[in-house]
Amino acid sequence: MKTLKAALVQQTCTNNKAENLSKSIQAIREAARLGAQLVVLQELHAGLYFCQTEDTCCFDQAEPIPGASSDLLAAVARECGVVIVASLFERRAPGIYHNTAIVLENDGTIAGKYRKMHIPDDPGFYEKFYFTPGDLGFAPIDTSVGRLGVLVCWDQWFPEAARLMTLSGAELLIYPTAIGWDPNDTPAEQERQRDAWITIQRSHAIANGLPVISANRVGLETSSDNSGTGILFWGSSFVTGCQGEILTQAGTEGEQLCTVEIDMTRCEDVRRIWPFLRDRRIDSYQDLLKRFCR
Amino acid sequence: MKTLKAALVQQTCTNNKAENLSKSIQAIREAARLGAQLVVLQELHAGLYFCQTEDTCCFDQAEPIPGASSDLLAAVARECGVVIVASLFERRAPGIYHNTAIVLENDGTIAGKYRKMHIPDDPGFYEKFYFTPGDLGFAPIDTSVGRLGVLVCWDQWFPEAARLMTLSGAELLIYPTAIGWDPNDTPAEQERQRDAWITIQRSHAIANGLPVISANRVGLETSSDNSGTGILFWGSSFVTGCQGEILTQAGTEGEQLCTVEIDMTRCEDVRRIWPFLRDRRIDSYQDLLKRFCR
Repeated sequence: MKTLKAALVQQTCTNNKAENLSKSIQAIREAARLGAQLVVLQELHAGLYFCQTEDTCCFDQAEPIPGASSDLLAAVARECGVVIVASLFERRAPGIYHNTAIVLENDGTIAGKYRKMHIPDDPGFYEKFYFTPGDLGFAPIDTSVGRLGVLVCWDQWFPEAARLMTLSGAELLIYPTAIGWDPNDTPAEQERQRDAWITIQRSHAIANGLPVISANRVGLETSSDNSGTGILFWGSSFVTGCQGEILTQAGTEGEQLCTVEIDMTRCEDVRRIWPFLRDRRIDSYQDLLKRFCR
Repeated sequence: MKTLKAALVQQTCTNNKAENLSKSIQAIREAARLGAQLVVLQELHAGLYFCQTEDTCCFDQAEPIPGASSDLLAAVARECGVVIVASLFERRAPGIYHNTAIVLENDGTIAGKYRKMHIPDDPGFYEKFYFTPGDLGFAPIDTSVGRLGVLVCWDQWFPEAARLMTLSGAELLIYPTAIGWDPNDTPAEQERQRDAWITIQRSHAIANGLPVISANRVGLETSSDNSGTGILFWGSSFVTGCQGEILTQAGTEGEQLCTVEIDMTRCEDVRRIWPFLRDRRIDSYQDLLKRFCR
């Protein structure tokens, strides 16, 4: 494949799951109409970002994979003939729930899934309560549009995750994500955070010589127990090329469907002039397996 | 230490070693006069970037450490009462030469040294011919201004190097570097390269929650055998805070001394809101020790 037409969907969500999914599906159909072969949805696009509080009732939102939502999206993948990266709250067993991304092949089969490996926990993002850390490792998923290195949100801050996907042959890094501002933070702090989020993901493209797609949630979601002000999800979804250059980017406000053509031949060109994979000092990296060395 | 006043020196070089060193020393004295406690010099600041061609005569430029250049700079460190990060072509034994950064304590002693671990080799940057890969690992160097994670140039493209320094307790990452454009490249390609170089180093600050200082060479140096057009070193030396935010940056042209106050208390504040070191999946990182997994 020389060129990949990719799309990402940046959307707001409400507590109406059917409406959220319907909105995602409408965007997938529009993306397909525009020629997209791959559509990336944001993290947990079927609902509100429920991790603002810890509430056992929220586990009711989890569903098996395959299950109703994956079946619905699989049908759309087949109908539109597109590969879809979706993000679901997976119920694996009573008491074991995951933040899982699934990849649907363009014939409606499940090409594979990735269970979020790095789980955050800080005020307003109580994910360690909800999500059991992934146990499928960093394995790319083979599809008709290439070998996809699918990671999720918090993973984006870890160069290790991007590198491991690359070493396993990923041709593209994909991050469904849900990140936003604390409305009480200063504008300067807010901008540092958003800029850091863009920068770290661009750096994965650079370090590994491959394109990156990041689809983020948008809009204000208040906390269900009014314990906090809520989260203002900052959108800014984007796609980069193999040198980290921005190919397309959504705004910080409002829903948006972005489509872009990615030149998949540039990976090898870029890795020839920037042969980082050749020069890694794997003889001296053992301490990467430690928590800290002091 | 709550605040660190740091300086970096971005300079042009000629084939006159004494003049190059004299220029560096003049800048160190000026930095000290402005209150700097730490001064970072660019990569191989004592001479031209000789790696544009492969010529055995260039090994004559290497010198032992301690040696004439380190003695000279040590005297300046003591005279000015500043910590200096210098970059020298080290002659360790006949046939073993390193690209070595030394850290001079403010009393003129050698606090430690780092031998460049990742060695590049591409047209115009024939470093694998000249530099034996470092064998001192990624060990920060303790000084009166903090524990310094000194790396060199090509290392900057490897998130592993930054992480390893962090895990060993580095409080600051420092990159003496010499990187520039092929004048034959298009302006768009040139800008992608410079932007990627800034982005990847900012990402090390973000991923690890510590400041980064990068001092780069500036100016056009033609290749000694006229085999190429030469390298237009792009300057753009900079300092970031713990969220990757740019604190100061030099231009792409001309010599420059940059000084900046770095708030060393922000590291812990930032790591509390972005606790990446807490969440690394060290149980699943084994493949980082492989060249490739396929």
